Amino acid sequence: MNLTEKMTSSQLIFDGHVVHLYKDTVQLPDGNTGIREYVKHVGAVCVVPVTDEGEILLERQYRYAVDRILTEIPAGKLDYPGEDWTEAALRELREETGAVPRELIDLGDYYGSPAIMGERIRMFLARGLTFTDNDLDDDEFLEVFRMPLSDAVEAVLKGEIPDGKTQCGILRAAAMLK
Amino acid sequence: MNLTEKMTSSQLIFDGHVVHLYKDTVQLPDGNTGIREYVKHVGAVCVVPVTDEGEILLERQYRYAVDRILTEIPAGKLDYPGEDWTEAALRELREETGAVPRELIDLGDYYGSPAIMGERIRMFLARGLTFTDNDLDDDEFLEVFRMPLSDAVEAVLKGEIPDGKTQCGILRAAAMLK
Repeated sequence: MNLTEKMTSSQLIFDGHVVHLYKDTVQLPDGNTGIREYVKHVGAVCVVPVTDEGEILLERQYRYAVDRILTEIPAGKLDYPGEDWTEAALRELREETGAVPRELIDLGDYYGSPAIMGERIRMFLARGLTFTDNDLDDDEFLEVFRMPLSDAVEAVLKGEIPDGKTQCGILRAAAMLK
Repeated sequence: MNLTEKMTSSQLIFDGHVVHLYKDTVQLPDGNTGIREYVKHVGAVCVVPVTDEGEILLERQYRYAVDRILTEIPAGKLDYPGEDWTEAALRELREETGAVPRELIDLGDYYGSPAIMGERIRMFLARGLTFTDNDLDDDEFLEVFRMPLSDAVEAVLKGEIPDGKTQCGILRAAAMLK
């Protein structure tokens, strides 16, 4: 069965600082016409930082789009399209937490909302951490804290950590390190 | 530390069928001004359906926003704001797979991309499945298939399933059912 949709026309609705919104007309697999509204995004990285003591570094950060303070793993946008995922991961980890890892393991892609959001996030596990100064962006406000990875797993399984990449990151790191 | 941002003005940029894009001016925690571009969304549900034989129902679906065929758990938008999450989960599961569960367990919220996307997804685990006819939306094309839950866990841990809610759903279902 052919599942693919083909673009017949594309309209840029809004070309913002972060969000680039398109409304495209597509040919559906059955030949009919459909409309797809979606956001293009430069791409992003997220990092699960685990200390030699088995603790995970987490952040409390207010997210305006959902009007909640969320617990999240370190993450950030690429600086430009096509930036090396590893370089971006090392930068975001250091900027937000001050951590520099001895080992960075690629966990593959994460699409948070692929029905409407083109954002591709590459996930990493970081181990063997040493610490230097952090260096937040001007419009970034967050609190870094640590907890045992096993407690974080417990919190995810109880539904207490709503951020998707953080749920994935914690469970995947725990599976890899056990 | 106060982390919250306060809206000082809000502009609706695009009021689409699915995407409602806003550009707001906010007061940052340090008193300075920031801009937040974000998408409002009616909300959605996703369901991890596990058969009595320990198999998970999955779907192959083309996602235009990321231009890939993804493997995903069943999911769908609420029909209207404030729709009961459970009713929506039962409807989407039946429409996409024909499955009707004896038991539906609330796994809590999932935010796929909270930096720019207001979409809140409620996750469920569905067990004790019986089957009736499915009933897809006009613009929905997908293939349902089954695999042992343990194989799905393996695939997530190898980085072979990029969809975020599906990674979370598989790992959380496996932890709950083991």
